[in-house]
Amino acid sequence: MNINEPAQSLIAAGQLFHQRGWVPATGGNFSARLDGERILITASGCHKGELAASDFLVADFDGKPIDSPRKASYETLLHCQLYRHDPAIGAVLHTHSIANTVLSRRLDRIRLAGYELLKLLPGIGTHDTQVDVPVFANDQDIARLSATVDAHMKRDPQTPAYVIAGHGLYAWGADVAQARWRVEALEFMFACELHA
Amino acid sequence: MNINEPAQSLIAAGQLFHQRGWVPATGGNFSARLDGERILITASGCHKGELAASDFLVADFDGKPIDSPRKASYETLLHCQLYRHDPAIGAVLHTHSIANTVLSRRLDRIRLAGYELLKLLPGIGTHDTQVDVPVFANDQDIARLSATVDAHMKRDPQTPAYVIAGHGLYAWGADVAQARWRVEALEFMFACELHA
Amino acid sequence: MNINEPAQSLIAAGQLFHQRGWVPATGGNFSARLDGERILITASGCHKGELAASDFLVADFDGKPIDSPRKASYETLLHCQLYRHDPAIGAVLHTHSIANTVLSRRLDRIRLAGYELLKLLPGIGTHDTQVDVPVFANDQDIARLSATVDAHMKRDPQTPAYVIAGHGLYAWGADVAQARWRVEALEFMFACELHA
Amino acid sequence: MNINEPAQSLIAAGQLFHQRGWVPATGGNFSARLDGERILITASGCHKGELAASDFLVADFDGKPIDSPRKASYETLLHCQLYRHDPAIGAVLHTHSIANTVLSRRLDRIRLAGYELLKLLPGIGTHDTQVDVPVFANDQDIARLSATVDAHMKRDPQTPAYVIAGHGLYAWGADVAQARWRVEALEFMFACELHA
Repeated sequence: MNINEPAQSLIAAGQLFHQRGWVPATGGNFSARLDGERILITASGCHKGELAASDFLVADFDGKPIDSPRKASYETLLHCQLYRHDPAIGAVLHTHSIANTVLSRRLDRIRLAGYELLKLLPGIGTHDTQVDVPVFANDQDIARLSATVDAHMKRDPQTPAYVIAGHGLYAWGADVAQARWRVEALEFMFACELHA
Repeated sequence: MNINEPAQSLIAAGQLFHQRGWVPATGGNFSARLDGERILITASGCHKGELAASDFLVADFDGKPIDSPRKASYETLLHCQLYRHDPAIGAVLHTHSIANTVLSRRLDRIRLAGYELLKLLPGIGTHDTQVDVPVFANDQDIARLSATVDAHMKRDPQTPAYVIAGHGLYAWGADVAQARWRVEALEFMFACELHA
Repeated sequence: MNINEPAQSLIAAGQLFHQRGWVPATGGNFSARLDGERILITASGCHKGELAASDFLVADFDGKPIDSPRKASYETLLHCQLYRHDPAIGAVLHTHSIANTVLSRRLDRIRLAGYELLKLLPGIGTHDTQVDVPVFANDQDIARLSATVDAHMKRDPQTPAYVIAGHGLYAWGADVAQARWRVEALEFMFACELHA
Repeated sequence: MNINEPAQSLIAAGQLFHQRGWVPATGGNFSARLDGERILITASGCHKGELAASDFLVADFDGKPIDSPRKASYETLLHCQLYRHDPAIGAVLHTHSIANTVLSRRLDRIRLAGYELLKLLPGIGTHDTQVDVPVFANDQDIARLSATVDAHMKRDPQTPAYVIAGHGLYAWGADVAQARWRVEALEFMFACELHA
C-alpha cells in the first residue's frame, strides 16, 4: 500500500489529459484503490493537469477522508460506487473533453462499432462488435447520480464506461495505466464520432 | 504588494494560452491588481506566450504607467474598467481563440446552458442554468468601448465575462488562478458550441 | 547492425505521434530493418508514445522473436509482408489518427490530388498528380489480412501506403526518418480531406 | 552580419510551427536577410521543426549558395523575389497548414475582414477593413511561379502575404519576430475562416 506510486501515475495522467484539453479549469478527478477499504483521490478544487502529491487524500468507500484535513473531490461517491461494484477495479479517471461533452448533450448513449480500439475495452477482442457507452443526465445530487449509475451497472455489468451529459467521461481499469489507456481509446473514438 | 508573484502567474497563464493557440501574435493582454490604486499589466507589443518579467509595468486605474518607460497594452482601459467596477476583481485575462472569434462574429451573445463547467462562473452552483456572455462590437476607440462595457455591467452586474466581436474574451477572477480557470472553462464551452 | 540507433529513432517518432494524438492507448506499432533477415519491432501491449529501449525485440521475417521473451506486436506479419515485398523498405510505421480512422470508415480508397506534399511519396515529383491510398477492411486474422495486402501490392507496386478501415495507416520508407516524413505528409493530407 | 542570431530565431520559429502542425515532413522553408546582397536560408530536404545551425546556408539574391556545399531550399527563388522587391523585408517564412491548404484549394483569394488581428498586417491600423490574400496556382517551375508573384506584387504593392494553392503561405516582415507574428495572425484568421 504505497501511496506514492499511484499518486505519481495519476499526476502523469493528469498532465497528459491537460495537454489534450480534457481537464479544463478544475474539471475531472482521479483515484486509485489502495486496498479493500481505501482509495487515494484528488482533493476538491485543484487543477488536475498540475497536481502535486499534496493534492491527494485517502478516503474510505463512503468518500470520507481518513487522516486528512482536505476535502475529497465533489464527485467522490461516483468513484466509490465503482470500487464497491467491482473489486477488480483499481483506478478511476474522469475527464471533460469537447468530444464527450458535445456527444453527450446530443445522445442518450454513444454507440461505438467497428473500431480497432474497441479492443481496449473490457472483454472485447475484435473490432467487429458494437458497444454502447451510456449517457446519464447530469445531477448535482451526487448520491442520487451514483445510485442511478449503480442500478445501471447492476443491470448491465458489461458497461465499459459511462458519460454524464454535458459533463464528462468516467472510465476505469485494473490499474492507472489501463484506465488511462481506456480514456485515450474512448476519447479517440468519441472524437471520430464527432467528426463523422 | 509583491510584483513578482502576480507576474509569474501571468507568465505561466500566457504559456498555457500560447500552447492552446489563444494568444496569437501579439494578441491578448493580462493584468493583476496590486492594491486599491494600481495594477500590473503587460506592456504593449510583446508576445503573451513568451513573457518575461520585464514585459510588465505598473499603471494606475486610468491606465497611466507609474515609473515605467514602457507603454501599457493598447486595451488597458478595458482592464481599468473592471478593477474600478468591482473591488473583488484581482486579475483580468484577455484571450483570442478561434472559438471565441468565430462565435462572436456570428452571435450578439453566446448562450451557455447545461454545462457542468458553468459552475466555474461567479455565483453559479449548478449545470442546470443558462448564462449569456455578451458580445460587444469591436471598436478601436478603447475609451468608448470601455464606456459601453461599463454601462452594460452596471445594468447587468451578473455579467460573467464578455467577448469583443472578432477580437476576443475578457474574463476575470479574485486572483490569476481563478481568472485562468474561468478562461479555460469558457473557452471549453465556446469550443463545444462551435462543434455543436 | 546497431540496434540502438533505429530504436532511438522509433522512440522519437512515437513521442511526436503521441503529441499529435496518432498513437492512442496501445495503438500503433513501429519497426526497422536490421538486415536481410531480421527486424527490430515494438513489443505487444506497450504505449507507442512512451517507448523505452526495452520495449523492442528482434524478430525474423516470419515475425518470430529471436532471443527475446517478449511477444512481438500483434500485427508483426503486416510489417514482415512489407520487408519481404521490397528490400528497399527500411522502416514501417503504423499510426491511428482521427483523420485516417474517419476517412477509412467512409471510403474504400483515399484519393489525394494536387497537394504539394504528394512529393514526399515514393516516385512522385509534382503536386500535379493523383494518388490512391487503398483502404482494406479490418480483419483480426492478421495472416489473412497480410495476404490481402500482399496480393494488392503485387498487382499495384506503386502503392504508396495503405489504411486499414477504422484502424490505421501503414507507411514506410528507406529509413525511419523517411517513413516518419511520409506519415506526417499523409496525415496532413488526410486531415485536409477531412476538413474539405 | 551575425549569422547565429537570425538562425536561432528561425530555429525557434520552426519549433513553434512544428508544434502547431504547420511544417509537416520537409515542408516549409525560412530565410532572413543578412545584408543588401545575401540571405540565410534553410537547406533543402531537412525538417523545419527540428533545425540545427548546420541546416542553414548563405545564398545570394539569385539563390546561389555562397561558400556552402549544401543545396538551398527548392523554393529559394520565391524568397529572393521578396528580398529584391522590398528592401524593408528582413525575413520570409513559408508554412504548410491545414487551414491554408484547404482554403487555397477552394478559393482564388482569401478575404479577411473585421478581425482585430488584421492590425498585424503591414499598414493596417483597424479591424474595420478588408484584406485579400492572393492565392496563386501551384507550379513546380519555381522561376515561373516567382515571376507570377513578382508581377502581382508590382501591380499590388499592398499585398500582405500570399498563398500557393494546396501548398502553403508566404509571409514576411522587417525581422523574424515580425514575420512569425504575421504567420501566427494569418494562420489564426485562416483557421477562423475554415470553421466559419
